[in-house]
Amino acid sequence: MKISRRATSIQESPIRKLAPLAAAARGRGVTIYHLNIGQPDVPTPPEFLRAVGSFPGKVLEYGPSDGLPELREAMVGYFERFGIALDPHEVLITNGGSEAILFAFNVVADEGEEIIIPEPFYTNYNGYAEMANLRVVPVRTRAEDGFHLPADEALDAAVTPRTRAILVCSPNNPTGTVLAWDELERLAAFAARHDIFLIADEVYKEFTYDGRRHRSVLELPGVRERVIVVDSISKRFSACGARVGAVICRNPEVMSSVLKFGQARLCPPTLEQLGAVAAYRLGESYFEAVRAEYQRRRDVMYDALTADPGIVLKRPRGAFYMIVKMAGVEDSDDFARWLLEDFSLAGDTVMVAPAGGFYATPGAGRDEVRMAYVLEVGKLERAMEVFLAGLERYRASRPAVAQVG
Amino acid sequence: MKISRRATSIQESPIRKLAPLAAAARGRGVTIYHLNIGQPDVPTPPEFLRAVGSFPGKVLEYGPSDGLPELREAMVGYFERFGIALDPHEVLITNGGSEAILFAFNVVADEGEEIIIPEPFYTNYNGYAEMANLRVVPVRTRAEDGFHLPADEALDAAVTPRTRAILVCSPNNPTGTVLAWDELERLAAFAARHDIFLIADEVYKEFTYDGRRHRSVLELPGVRERVIVVDSISKRFSACGARVGAVICRNPEVMSSVLKFGQARLCPPTLEQLGAVAAYRLGESYFEAVRAEYQRRRDVMYDALTADPGIVLKRPRGAFYMIVKMAGVEDSDDFARWLLEDFSLAGDTVMVAPAGGFYATPGAGRDEVRMAYVLEVGKLERAMEVFLAGLERYRASRPAVAQVG
Repeated sequence: MKISRRATSIQESPIRKLAPLAAAARGRGVTIYHLNIGQPDVPTPPEFLRAVGSFPGKVLEYGPSDGLPELREAMVGYFERFGIALDPHEVLITNGGSEAILFAFNVVADEGEEIIIPEPFYTNYNGYAEMANLRVVPVRTRAEDGFHLPADEALDAAVTPRTRAILVCSPNNPTGTVLAWDELERLAAFAARHDIFLIADEVYKEFTYDGRRHRSVLELPGVRERVIVVDSISKRFSACGARVGAVICRNPEVMSSVLKFGQARLCPPTLEQLGAVAAYRLGESYFEAVRAEYQRRRDVMYDALTADPGIVLKRPRGAFYMIVKMAGVEDSDDFARWLLEDFSLAGDTVMVAPAGGFYATPGAGRDEVRMAYVLEVGKLERAMEVFLAGLERYRASRPAVAQVG
Repeated sequence: MKISRRATSIQESPIRKLAPLAAAARGRGVTIYHLNIGQPDVPTPPEFLRAVGSFPGKVLEYGPSDGLPELREAMVGYFERFGIALDPHEVLITNGGSEAILFAFNVVADEGEEIIIPEPFYTNYNGYAEMANLRVVPVRTRAEDGFHLPADEALDAAVTPRTRAILVCSPNNPTGTVLAWDELERLAAFAARHDIFLIADEVYKEFTYDGRRHRSVLELPGVRERVIVVDSISKRFSACGARVGAVICRNPEVMSSVLKFGQARLCPPTLEQLGAVAAYRLGESYFEAVRAEYQRRRDVMYDALTADPGIVLKRPRGAFYMIVKMAGVEDSDDFARWLLEDFSLAGDTVMVAPAGGFYATPGAGRDEVRMAYVLEVGKLERAMEVFLAGLERYRASRPAVAQVG
């Protein structure tokens, strides 16, 4: 009797390892600014919570396996605003974006087959790949390029006879990078050239700044049957605890396969779908306010960090994360630990996510951390002050490392 | 670019194939008594719905990956009533019982390994097995034995070097059979003898009749580390649409592995967990009323069916299903179709689930249907009248078949 290989090899969340150290710091009376988590602090729309609480029925029955029809229609209406025409049958509601990824992986690939993912990438993709018994093949992107796609040659070099799809996330967690339209076109050509699927995680769709609107892979011509979008209301409506996501695809064979997996798990949560319907009926002004707030925060963080000449950082255009590359840091696990254990500035410190966990390539990202800007501006300003002071002191305490950096 | 093998081979719900025929019958003005579905008609406790609607926060944040602490503690309290001592760390909340099964499969076995399941069994186990790339090895149980476990020799014969677990469901869907304590002891010995896990789906725990209380595999001595329980509030509190289940296990290695899969999907739905906390605080009287009602219905169905000498049926002791074996029916798919398409009694007919879909062995169960007693007594009495008249007429219309049967 033993635990499966996949259970033992699945990676533990790199951030969670730091949690006990954070608790100890709090125990010493230190205030911690959390730059490590992607939990938005924007209020969940009251309309969402009201709708959840106003369930009219007496029996909370199983809902449809593909989700409530009114939610699928509300999502069709939402995409129409972007000029994206969908049929409700091209939308299937899932238990969060997580299940959408799991279903997409299961439908496009069998055990032992491969999915290409530009790295750094959202750590949890590894967990879904383990559950689906797929191999993640990373393609490296770099801080110096603002984590945009590498040249076609680098993408092509990652393809093997077992490749079934490429998965991109835009706006990106953890980099904040928004893929440009010409990058999406290159991805479409790449998918067509190798006859594979193009899966796009677009859960941060509404979080784009500087007046640029998000372009979806659903807008790409010529690859309608190849494109699968993974979506979620978690960030869109600050409803992470709701677990309402979606698979969106115009390939009927993909959708009927996804539905079979959906039937096996019966249905997504009904009450929180009712909340999502109400949230999707909110007007554009809801997003404008949220976007303006995050753009302000992005600017505070970006401006503060780029004042340090040892930091490599291109202005991220979306989501609410940045990957920050730092001269003088050779092991960001150690740095993140040190910030919690050995440093404070007038009783304050910061918690950051070491970036190694976002890479599949061993040793990559060890001079980087991920920061999320989900604190209000005043706190974020103080957090930046504390972080930069910490970085300076860390470098000074490790002179040999600083020279290498 | 093609759909995966697993997506194409996953079975479609056998009941869903009949749905268009039912719609057509309704279109002709026929009243259909639904014996085909397991959706309880008992009201969801108002306490559940009130708690869901009274979320006190402003931001519906990610919850803990292992579930809300108050729900895990409420479940510990619930199991205490049965004399089962658990620690909250031995309970992990999932997106319904479905995800609990998927996690259990992923933790105990790798791709290509085997899980033994007595058949007939809950069809959706097949879907989870496909997702986890496991092979289901059926062990036959029979109507004549009340679908109790076969002899040890039959169980032992199903074991191969790739066997990792046996999964039982008690009280059982689709048979209604409740495993006796000595059967649980035999399962414990079997698991120990072959050094495999014992997974028990106990979601119908509260649905046992004739004054007998449910015994859980958690009560078995000597196999604490081998036993994994899959649980859910769907049937317990008539909250199928809530998607709140649990994995319960005292093996710390299993639980830390389950937690890693749990972290990959972030968290179960928060609001419906709040509802579950309130439901778990309901007293024993809630269950007594529900149990009394279902026992009455079980008796109505059992007494009516066993009046037909061509029906093989032992009195089921739990859940709200029976597998009904009928002389004179050679192909229950055809029979179920015929009931919807070609039969009615004064404008009424019944919809039943052909049992073939509940068997992994090809051709098994073709003279059986599954019936659920989730209709109130008056309707159930009429449904039985209609069904028995239909069965009689079907047999008469197929004389050759009747002779074979």
